[in-house]
Amino acid sequence: MSASDERESDLMQKIVSLCKRRGFVFQSSEIYGGLRSSYDYGPMGVELKRNLMNEWWTAMVHSREDVVGLDASIMMHSDVWRSSGHLASFSDPLVDCKVCGERFRADKAPRLTMGSDAPITLADKGRAKAAQQHAQDKLGVALERDGKTLLGATAGDRGYVCPNCGSTFLSDERQFQLMFRTTLGPVDPIGDVVKVVREAVEAGLDEAAIRERVDAVTAESAVYLRPETAQAMFVQFPNILQSTAMKVPFGVAQMGKSFRNEVTIEHFIFRSCEFEQMEMEYFVQPGQGPTWLDFWKRERLRWWQAIGLRSDNLRLREHGADELAHYSDGCFDVEYKFPWGWDELEGIASRTDYDLRAHGQGSGKKLGYFDPEATDPETGKKGWRYLPHVIEPAAGATRGLLAVLCDAYDEEPGDADGKGARTVLRLHPRLAPIKVGILPLVKRDGMPELAREIATEFFRQGVNAKYDEQHAIGRRYARHDEIGTPYCLTVDAQTLEDRTVTLRHRDDRRQERVKLDAAVEAVRQRLRS
Amino acid sequence: MSASDERESDLMQKIVSLCKRRGFVFQSSEIYGGLRSSYDYGPMGVELKRNLMNEWWTAMVHSREDVVGLDASIMMHSDVWRSSGHLASFSDPLVDCKVCGERFRADKAPRLTMGSDAPITLADKGRAKAAQQHAQDKLGVALERDGKTLLGATAGDRGYVCPNCGSTFLSDERQFQLMFRTTLGPVDPIGDVVKVVREAVEAGLDEAAIRERVDAVTAESAVYLRPETAQAMFVQFPNILQSTAMKVPFGVAQMGKSFRNEVTIEHFIFRSCEFEQMEMEYFVQPGQGPTWLDFWKRERLRWWQAIGLRSDNLRLREHGADELAHYSDGCFDVEYKFPWGWDELEGIASRTDYDLRAHGQGSGKKLGYFDPEATDPETGKKGWRYLPHVIEPAAGATRGLLAVLCDAYDEEPGDADGKGARTVLRLHPRLAPIKVGILPLVKRDGMPELAREIATEFFRQGVNAKYDEQHAIGRRYARHDEIGTPYCLTVDAQTLEDRTVTLRHRDDRRQERVKLDAAVEAVRQRLRS
Repeated sequence: MSASDERESDLMQKIVSLCKRRGFVFQSSEIYGGLRSSYDYGPMGVELKRNLMNEWWTAMVHSREDVVGLDASIMMHSDVWRSSGHLASFSDPLVDCKVCGERFRADKAPRLTMGSDAPITLADKGRAKAAQQHAQDKLGVALERDGKTLLGATAGDRGYVCPNCGSTFLSDERQFQLMFRTTLGPVDPIGDVVKVVREAVEAGLDEAAIRERVDAVTAESAVYLRPETAQAMFVQFPNILQSTAMKVPFGVAQMGKSFRNEVTIEHFIFRSCEFEQMEMEYFVQPGQGPTWLDFWKRERLRWWQAIGLRSDNLRLREHGADELAHYSDGCFDVEYKFPWGWDELEGIASRTDYDLRAHGQGSGKKLGYFDPEATDPETGKKGWRYLPHVIEPAAGATRGLLAVLCDAYDEEPGDADGKGARTVLRLHPRLAPIKVGILPLVKRDGMPELAREIATEFFRQGVNAKYDEQHAIGRRYARHDEIGTPYCLTVDAQTLEDRTVTLRHRDDRRQERVKLDAAVEAVRQRLRS
Repeated sequence: MSASDERESDLMQKIVSLCKRRGFVFQSSEIYGGLRSSYDYGPMGVELKRNLMNEWWTAMVHSREDVVGLDASIMMHSDVWRSSGHLASFSDPLVDCKVCGERFRADKAPRLTMGSDAPITLADKGRAKAAQQHAQDKLGVALERDGKTLLGATAGDRGYVCPNCGSTFLSDERQFQLMFRTTLGPVDPIGDVVKVVREAVEAGLDEAAIRERVDAVTAESAVYLRPETAQAMFVQFPNILQSTAMKVPFGVAQMGKSFRNEVTIEHFIFRSCEFEQMEMEYFVQPGQGPTWLDFWKRERLRWWQAIGLRSDNLRLREHGADELAHYSDGCFDVEYKFPWGWDELEGIASRTDYDLRAHGQGSGKKLGYFDPEATDPETGKKGWRYLPHVIEPAAGATRGLLAVLCDAYDEEPGDADGKGARTVLRLHPRLAPIKVGILPLVKRDGMPELAREIATEFFRQGVNAKYDEQHAIGRRYARHDEIGTPYCLTVDAQTLEDRTVTLRHRDDRRQERVKLDAAVEAVRQRLRS
């Protein structure tokens, strides 16, 4: 591990630790040992996530005349995924290592030049010995052993090796479907499978024929958890058009959970099997794709800056021709500089008319749009019926949350003795879980009562204030720094006399004595800007 | 169908039709023929649902010192459902009719007194003849036929008949698991099942032994979609306690999707397989359950009234002893008078310490709470470690949405010729998808520009206003009545001169000429109250 790698991993560990300590993110089902790549958002995390997603909704739906919202079901008809191509090709190439048993993605495995040495490294000597024996007995290969490493293998024409032990002794690649599958309706699919296999085995059918029958009997009731929110916006295009009378160009926006049975999970909540998306499909006249792709890539970059991410940590990256889906004629990623390097926050893709065309063909329904004002380029007459083209800004809410946490995390070393050291989350006030902490200096003399009154006044204004009386005032400030509360108002004896309070600013710890009303107004103003 | 039944079904049809026409609720995957009991929330529906759920969150989390939020993953460790009892007993008794093939819930089937006549009625004569033959050949029963009805059967000791045809020739009851099951991780469960069954059949194992092996091989990677949001709040109890230092009594609140593979689906979105909940677990000192049950049942009834449901259409119903779960010592339902009758909106249950105890035992972790101030009743000393008891107000967001729609739906007949007739959704302004329509009288003379400026001013104030220039002004008012927009502001020639606008009120169609600033302020005031 290089020094910079260590710094990165150190930073991620600190963020993960803060997330658990302060109630942002917990491991799912932790008391049962946790569930692979599943996370729960705690008292602070749920507020931060809600604020982030509400900001997106306000920017993309409420404040735009040309965009409406949708909230579709997670389970959709299987034909949706047949038409979209997900059933056939939304899969990863999976490989098993014959030495250590690791199951991994071929396209993410370490690569070696064909013919170069491919040493195999096990966890310890004992395992290396066992693996040597196994290679001899089962694979018919004689390898030499040096400690926990086996030597003598060379890289083959596949070009990759096992990411766990480095072995080149690998199973064939097979396609692994990434959509989660379940069964809808009062049927017992396992019971049906047992019955079919039993009959097929008794009839002496071969493997392929058995599998075909099993697939036939399970397909009927199979449903999939959506792997993206996007498809519902194409499938509901006619209903949305009819119920709103929107005119092209217009967009449909949706936020919500999606599910992918990822083989490789990594970087805390960055890539997990259950995650949240914020996607928008923007329908435009054929030929207008490039103009709107340009518009939306700039608009979306601007949004990520507006919610507080530092410009230095954001960039647009254009996809190379080799990265584009076959139907796409242009794509940009908004990337964020995560502790492990630049990685995708959002993709803004020009998808042509691929999706509406696919669902039109798949369903036999007409998904076109008629513009009575436009001139049909073929006939030269007024009135043009066409399939709109689509620009899709598709953002990750879960990874957006991680970017926000990474960007906001800061440590101040304090003085030479470490006095005054603190950890602070420099969240944009609109994202902060709690906008203002209302702190009675002590739990008596009428201070709690007045502090509670102030909190109530904030609620009335729609500001999430939190009354907080536990522990000494310094500890309370420190806690609010760690959860990113931009302001604290402290109520003391003087407040009862002259209605002035101490307004403390998170970012520079500055404290000022102000009139209560002025403090309330200052906080409100800051939240609006 | 009685006259009152007809009125109810007529009303439901009108609401379903309005929901589709105005973009509240669409059938999921409609262009593919729809998916059983799945619904999508369109441009208006998504706003209404968000508003409803945000109201709950504000009331239950933001405006309370003693409640914090959580947003847990939908997939949880299987042991969660083992400990909670869902894996063993969250099931419905399923029965197949041997005459018509209907699959139904035994506990919901029509009941007949043992020994009474049980006529079987098929769809038509042809089917009745076929069923008669089938009964003779396969069931060994001779039935007489009269048109499409078969006579001669009598009700047996099961006490119920097929809800489709009335037959008493039924399969055994079997328990049907209501949780959706899927597979997490890079495994191929169907492939594994095929392999296991093949080996078992070849080894000559019997049915039970085969099933046991299949269950063993699938259990490892099986995960379930949560059938309720509640369990995560018990499972994360220690993390929440540690990260927030909350003191009993306190609550944890969560909103989100849950999934149940319901055998019986009914009443539009009222009972569907994918739905949203708003649940809160309130942890109290042992012995304090009854007091807090009383508090929360009143508080929750009050909330449903506060968001606009008519008091006449709401009631509290106490569960009888025979309805209570074995661990519960009290439960009230908030019921709403739906078009089909009183039905449940929310359950407020006293759950004792059942859940924390179950997860403590299941996980081997300590889920208790230590109160340094309280006196331990056993030792009589200060400092009491106990398992908190729980009061759970568990509301349905999806069915809450339906109640809101039913309550708001109204038709005005107009005059003798039907002139002035309209449909109007009398939604509480805070729930209305659009708060104010901003309508330029015509699309020229600077009116659109000024109207857009006004809309922008509303956004800046956080009010969801919608600029709307399509169609004649009367049609626009009618559309806004149907989606429940409480106010419309119309910009006309005079507005450009003196900045007065026409403020139109949804409920009584009253129109008044007011200063623009006064109109903006009037709308804001109304939304806050």
